Amino acid sequence: MVTAKGAQTSARLVESMLELIQTRGYAGTGLNTVVEQAQAPKGSLYFHFPEGKEALGVRAVELAAERFRALVADAALEAATPGEVVRRVVDVLAELLVSSDFRLGCPVSVVTLEMGAQSERLRETCAGAFDSWIVPVAEFLAANGRPEPAARALATAAVSAVEGAMIVSRAHRSVEPLRHTADALVTLLDGPAS
Amino acid sequence: MVTAKGAQTSARLVESMLELIQTRGYAGTGLNTVVEQAQAPKGSLYFHFPEGKEALGVRAVELAAERFRALVADAALEAATPGEVVRRVVDVLAELLVSSDFRLGCPVSVVTLEMGAQSERLRETCAGAFDSWIVPVAEFLAANGRPEPAARALATAAVSAVEGAMIVSRAHRSVEPLRHTADALVTLLDGPAS
Repeated sequence: MVTAKGAQTSARLVESMLELIQTRGYAGTGLNTVVEQAQAPKGSLYFHFPEGKEALGVRAVELAAERFRALVADAALEAATPGEVVRRVVDVLAELLVSSDFRLGCPVSVVTLEMGAQSERLRETCAGAFDSWIVPVAEFLAANGRPEPAARALATAAVSAVEGAMIVSRAHRSVEPLRHTADALVTLLDGPAS
Repeated sequence: MVTAKGAQTSARLVESMLELIQTRGYAGTGLNTVVEQAQAPKGSLYFHFPEGKEALGVRAVELAAERFRALVADAALEAATPGEVVRRVVDVLAELLVSSDFRLGCPVSVVTLEMGAQSERLRETCAGAFDSWIVPVAEFLAANGRPEPAARALATAAVSAVEGAMIVSRAHRSVEPLRHTADALVTLLDGPAS
C-alpha cells in the first residue's frame, strides 16, 4: 500500500528524474543522483519503481508532456490567433531557457534521440508526448478556419520547429533562434488558409 | 608521428563515435564500444585522442557538421529556389531515417541536449555546427532576394524546424513530420519577401 507520504516520495523521484533528464539526458542520469536530489530514502526507488530506470523515465516524460500540453491549452484559451498561441508558448520557453542559464532542454527530444533505438516503451511514450501537443494545436488551427488535413500538417511543423529552436537556442546560449522561429511560425499560421 | 595507417585508425574511431552518438547519444556511448566497432587496436584511442572522450566527441560533431554543410551546399547548387533546397535536403534526411529503420538521429542535437550544460567545448562545437548550416542557407536566401537581417532569421528558423522534425519523425517512426515541415518551409521560403 502506498501511503500519502509514499506518494510524495514517488512524485519527488519523478520530478528529480525529469530535471536531470532536462539538464544532461537519460543515459547520463544515474539513479543514485535521482534519489539524492529527491532527498528520498535509499530503497524508495525500487519500492516505487520496481521496473527500474525505464519506468521512471516513462513517468518523467509523461509529466513533461502533461505540463507542456497544459501550457499550450492555457495559451490557446487566451490567444486570438494561432500565431498568438505560438508567441505565448515561446515566451514561456524563452524564460525557461534564460532562467536556467540555458541548462534545461526538452526532455522528450533528448529521450527520443538517446533511447528511440533502444526502448520501444520510451520511444512510444515520446511519440505520445509529441502527439499530445500536436493534436490541440491542430484543433485550434481547425477552429480558426484551417481545414484538415492541413491543420494537422501545420501543427506538426509548428511543434517540430519549436522543438528544434529550443535546441539551437541552447547551443547558442541565446533565445534568438526561438524568437526567429516564432516570427516565422506567426507568418505561416496567421497567413491565409490554403 | 602519425602514419598513414594511424590516420586511418583515427578516422575510423571518429566514424564509429559519430555513428554511436547518432544511435544512442553521447553519454550512452562507451569508449570500449567505439574501439571495438572501429576494429581499432586497444590503446589506439588514447594514442590518437589523449584528451579522451570529449576530444573524440568534438571531432565527431565536426565531421557531422561538415557532411551536412556539404549536403546543403550541393542542394543549393542544383536548386532553383530556397524551398527547393529544403526539399532536396529533406529527401536525403528522410532516406537516412528510413534506411536506418529510424535508428539514426542528428548527433549535434543530442550532444547539445546532453552536454550543453556540462562541457563548454562541446556546446561551442555544436553552436558552430548549427551556424555552419544557417550561414549558407541565409546566403542563398539573400542571393534570392530576401534582405538581411530577414535572411538570417529565416535561415535560423528553417534549420531549427528541420532539426526538430527529424526528432518528431524518429519518435513516430514516420517521415511525415519531416515532409509536413518541408511543405511549411517551402511556403515560407518561396513566399513573397517581407
